[in-house]
Amino acid sequence: MYGGAPRPREDELIARYFAPLAGPGADGMRDDAATLTPSPGCDLVLTTDAIVAGVHYFPDDPPASIARKALGVNLSDIAAKGAVPRGFLLTLALPDDWTEAWLAAFTAGLGEAAREAGCPLLGGDTVRSGGPALIGVTVFGEVPRGGIVRRTTARIGDRLCVSGTLGDGALGLLLRRQPAWASALDGAMRDHLADRYWHPRPRLALAPVLRRHASASMDVSDGFAGDLAKMLGDGRGALIDVQALPLSPAATAALAAEPGLITPILTGGDDYEILCAVPPERLDAFLAEADATGIPMRAVGSVIAGEGPPAFAMRDGTRHVFAAGSFSHF
Amino acid sequence: MYGGAPRPREDELIARYFAPLAGPGADGMRDDAATLTPSPGCDLVLTTDAIVAGVHYFPDDPPASIARKALGVNLSDIAAKGAVPRGFLLTLALPDDWTEAWLAAFTAGLGEAAREAGCPLLGGDTVRSGGPALIGVTVFGEVPRGGIVRRTTARIGDRLCVSGTLGDGALGLLLRRQPAWASALDGAMRDHLADRYWHPRPRLALAPVLRRHASASMDVSDGFAGDLAKMLGDGRGALIDVQALPLSPAATAALAAEPGLITPILTGGDDYEILCAVPPERLDAFLAEADATGIPMRAVGSVIAGEGPPAFAMRDGTRHVFAAGSFSHF
Repeated sequence: MYGGAPRPREDELIARYFAPLAGPGADGMRDDAATLTPSPGCDLVLTTDAIVAGVHYFPDDPPASIARKALGVNLSDIAAKGAVPRGFLLTLALPDDWTEAWLAAFTAGLGEAAREAGCPLLGGDTVRSGGPALIGVTVFGEVPRGGIVRRTTARIGDRLCVSGTLGDGALGLLLRRQPAWASALDGAMRDHLADRYWHPRPRLALAPVLRRHASASMDVSDGFAGDLAKMLGDGRGALIDVQALPLSPAATAALAAEPGLITPILTGGDDYEILCAVPPERLDAFLAEADATGIPMRAVGSVIAGEGPPAFAMRDGTRHVFAAGSFSHF
Repeated sequence: MYGGAPRPREDELIARYFAPLAGPGADGMRDDAATLTPSPGCDLVLTTDAIVAGVHYFPDDPPASIARKALGVNLSDIAAKGAVPRGFLLTLALPDDWTEAWLAAFTAGLGEAAREAGCPLLGGDTVRSGGPALIGVTVFGEVPRGGIVRRTTARIGDRLCVSGTLGDGALGLLLRRQPAWASALDGAMRDHLADRYWHPRPRLALAPVLRRHASASMDVSDGFAGDLAKMLGDGRGALIDVQALPLSPAATAALAAEPGLITPILTGGDDYEILCAVPPERLDAFLAEADATGIPMRAVGSVIAGEGPPAFAMRDGTRHVFAAGSFSHF
């Protein structure tokens, strides 16, 4: 809560906390608009996602973590489209009890995440939310003309690949809410899951590899099973080998303690990994080039002819469908 | 309030209400990102503003009016920068009691306003707000390379000009809140003020005229006196002739009934007119070209050497400073 000292005005806040984050084209945040010009021969790629306190994160999460998440969920989309980040706009809707200390920590974290991604602030708007905080981010990336990797363009026969590990973010959230199985995990595992829930790792290094080889790509943000279903349809289904799905040691230990956790692992949100389809003749080159980025990438199944939700071949030989679909914040 | 029928899922809402508004590059709203490429030789101009129920509009305002305002406040910035709209992104944070009827009316109004401006929907995000509704819009415009008209580049000696009329939006808001002086106004005047509060008229036709002649430009959104102060500084002040300020018949009648209304007229928000600085040798050409667009434009004062807030030469010969500055929603 604010301590009673007079709050700075919006223009003072901009000068103190936002102008230091501003990139070229932002005119030092002294204007109501910024300019951005894609590199010659490039298209801009636009994406926007908002996160809300109490819906997408806990109000008492560290402000720098909230900032990293707000930017990261958008950078994850940019990476999945094969694009390189150029800059972002911020809409910050603050609750009535915001404090300058919170804003200072938030903008410090935001600046650090933006510098890491090479994605400076271009402008924004700060308003009263009249309720919980909302942080809306619009990220601009660029791809060579026509080079965006779309979501719905996978072909039957393509191999399905996924980066990193699945389910850690969802387990990190569960751990915070109802850690009944947490005794099966050591401290490092618990820290790993909490970190993955808080801190998306946008897979920006994969963008050029996706452009070269993927027939379709999206980021896994609302649960693997449901997001995979969004990628397909129109006569295209999927068969996924559950044993091939990449799980962290923490998720593996959690699943051993409580087998029912396969459902949040496959349908929970907050993975921020890349899901893509790769023509089989390109798979080896794709995996080799992905490996060279240092980001793990694994083939987990195939696009098959058929309707209906993706089928998962389980360890016991049965096939399972996760009817719950993807997690929705809405 | 929602009547109890099951609500459509987010992808169904997108297909039903948002996909019909989608422009080229939006991929039919089936992806997490859109593409946009400026015309050859052009820069993109980016601006983002959010409006919040209970802060920037009344929750029971007509949904189509709210939509028009959310887009219009951003188009107003695009116009002030000399840019032509190309498209927009929408962040819609809905309260828990949203209804499909509200969303249908909102998107219908949004589509109509977008078509009028030649500014199609490129993408967006829909989330739970956990509080009042918030509507965030990011508009993309374009200008010939380097042609953006900036806010802080006015020169001493420039004439200051303003489009349309001032104060109608602020009086429309007052009329709704505490209409003590409303008996001085006839029905048409009251309707005019309410309409100006609800429905910004982005002055898009002025954009090329501003590019040709203005040394600086901004839209008046947070009150004329305060916005003018934001334009100046760094040894540049302003002297404004209050008798030259453009007022509507409704504002003139209101001011005659209650002279104190000069303060909300000059410091209230929601004008969405253009304030610009024009070198004196260009003034005649500027006014003639502005006149040809059909949007009234008037010279109201000059940029002078000096510090401190803009001075207003009043009807009685005194000079006045509006120390309250501009209205802040924050």
